[in-house]
Amino acid sequence: MTLPPRRIAAAAPGESWESVLWIGKGLLASAGERLVSRSGRFVLVSSAGSRAPASEVARSLGDRVLARIQIDDREEAKTLSAVERIADAALSAGVRRDDAVVAVGGGVVCDVAGFAAAILLRGVAWNAIPTTTGAMADAAIGGKTGVDHSTGKNLLGAFHPPATVVIDPAAAATLPDRDYRAGLVEAFKAAWIADADLASRAENGIDRLLSRDEDALLDAVAGAAAIKAAIVSEDMKEGDRRRLLNFGHTLGHAFEAAGGYQDLRHGEAVAWGIAAALDISSRRARLPREEADRIRAALSRLGPFPQPSRDRGVLSSFLARDKKFTSRGTAGVLLERIGRGQVVESVPLEEWLEAAERASLTV
Amino acid sequence: MTLPPRRIAAAAPGESWESVLWIGKGLLASAGERLVSRSGRFVLVSSAGSRAPASEVARSLGDRVLARIQIDDREEAKTLSAVERIADAALSAGVRRDDAVVAVGGGVVCDVAGFAAAILLRGVAWNAIPTTTGAMADAAIGGKTGVDHSTGKNLLGAFHPPATVVIDPAAAATLPDRDYRAGLVEAFKAAWIADADLASRAENGIDRLLSRDEDALLDAVAGAAAIKAAIVSEDMKEGDRRRLLNFGHTLGHAFEAAGGYQDLRHGEAVAWGIAAALDISSRRARLPREEADRIRAALSRLGPFPQPSRDRGVLSSFLARDKKFTSRGTAGVLLERIGRGQVVESVPLEEWLEAAERASLTV
Repeated sequence: MTLPPRRIAAAAPGESWESVLWIGKGLLASAGERLVSRSGRFVLVSSAGSRAPASEVARSLGDRVLARIQIDDREEAKTLSAVERIADAALSAGVRRDDAVVAVGGGVVCDVAGFAAAILLRGVAWNAIPTTTGAMADAAIGGKTGVDHSTGKNLLGAFHPPATVVIDPAAAATLPDRDYRAGLVEAFKAAWIADADLASRAENGIDRLLSRDEDALLDAVAGAAAIKAAIVSEDMKEGDRRRLLNFGHTLGHAFEAAGGYQDLRHGEAVAWGIAAALDISSRRARLPREEADRIRAALSRLGPFPQPSRDRGVLSSFLARDKKFTSRGTAGVLLERIGRGQVVESVPLEEWLEAAERASLTV
Repeated sequence: MTLPPRRIAAAAPGESWESVLWIGKGLLASAGERLVSRSGRFVLVSSAGSRAPASEVARSLGDRVLARIQIDDREEAKTLSAVERIADAALSAGVRRDDAVVAVGGGVVCDVAGFAAAILLRGVAWNAIPTTTGAMADAAIGGKTGVDHSTGKNLLGAFHPPATVVIDPAAAATLPDRDYRAGLVEAFKAAWIADADLASRAENGIDRLLSRDEDALLDAVAGAAAIKAAIVSEDMKEGDRRRLLNFGHTLGHAFEAAGGYQDLRHGEAVAWGIAAALDISSRRARLPREEADRIRAALSRLGPFPQPSRDRGVLSSFLARDKKFTSRGTAGVLLERIGRGQVVESVPLEEWLEAAERASLTV
């Protein structure tokens, strides 16, 4: 039996944007009914890894596909050149302001295609169909689009929320196991900062999740997406509420960079970043030991994840470059309890580095 | 005697942006008091042609200049690569979200630097110090930033209004005569669509303008800037009010493109575009013959301008590519009277081509 799709709206009061998320089984085949384009025409962007779901979406859209572009979905290909390739193809096909982009893929495809939509003709609408667990839980929602620069990740971009996000668990069917597990870290992260019930359900259902049960995946992803939608509706740009979503990301980004974006998947680096943040949370936010252990246990089950580099020099150079470090100092996200995150403005660099050294996923 | 600078604010009710324009003599030397940056630090972008005013601004900013970048200000260099060069320099210098960009130059420098500011760290503030008559009257105000693409002008970009625009007539002191005259077309255009009194003053003061009298330039440019600020405050994106500013630009862009952006300056192409629009305006909007003749006479005085290409095949291919042509059809701006423009939705391509053939600046 297939339940009707769940609909979640994200919109800030008084702002001109709205994103509608559709979450349910079998949505790929009927994507054409839900994707938004004023003209009815679409520029379809996908990657080699998302070819199967992209073809299903293309079939659903039929002759409404104006152009179809495949980009490289590796982190090192997340550059302004990839945006330019999409723009070239779209403009050569005669894209107009009332046409829309649809991205079918993981975080890189969504970030790059969303950014291309943001700057094409000074902005056309776009739609996201995430095909990885990480993008379902996180990357496609919230309006942050962009590309990397040689000096750091996501340093060039735009706030450009998708008109629609369509999440069908079947889109992740061919995702390699390592990516599937790493992406789930983002779903758990959302639960841990904001929803204790969802956290318990996800922790208890971890076996079903790992066996790729579609209902378990739907529940985890829908819960995480709802949390993110609620948070970005309150706080589109980088205020305190939105910064909660960065739990595990301060060191996570540094671990990822220290591995040259090769050694660790984004979700794996975030798992280690969470482990380090638990350490600081115990001291600064009085996170109970048993709750920290519950989180470490869940992360161990999602893993095992490769060890990160703990080189102090490398990590501190990346921490200092993070664009969330303003001239005012170094901020981070801690956990008071499972389901309750907290933003702190001034954790010294030294404390991050010590936590990085001690970070452990062993209970 | 130097009058105090004139201050004009542009802001749409309920929107989060505001641009403040300062217009007056001697503002270059005190630019540091008016430019806006939350951190106090600036990335300064200029061109070879704007070296003198940029150096005056740099002196005023002193050690608050984080990085100084010179870009090529020719239309053919208005590309995504130029944006990337600015981003490279800014990021390598450690730019942060609370820093700001300041562009000192003509339309190309303002468009490119403003776009770079729009996408750097997903958006940093920027300031414009236009150094050409065209940029003073038009390009720096209103929030349209962007670069060209091989398939057309300004096809990649963002709406990102400058925090501050500082207009000092002395910034145009070293502008070559041809550029000085061509840029004035934009100032007259603003008057013709929206302010009959300013139009009369500017037409009567044309000798003083052409002799580079700073007071005459201030009056023309301040009037045009006030018109543009009022219009974009009402209508930031591309509604009917804002489209009035495109008077002369439908064919103007096509004339410019047909000359490979080499044969005609932007303002010269717009002058020919206005001549063609007068022809359509006489028939469709009952523009009185004597008013059309007044406009042609003023444009002749600003010229002589080189003849444009009138090749129907070339012009129609460029007209069809204009991003303002939606699937709904072909729009244009006509004049009912001097000081009163009107947007029409559906002028057939054939009518544009005939007007292009007949366009004349001879009274």
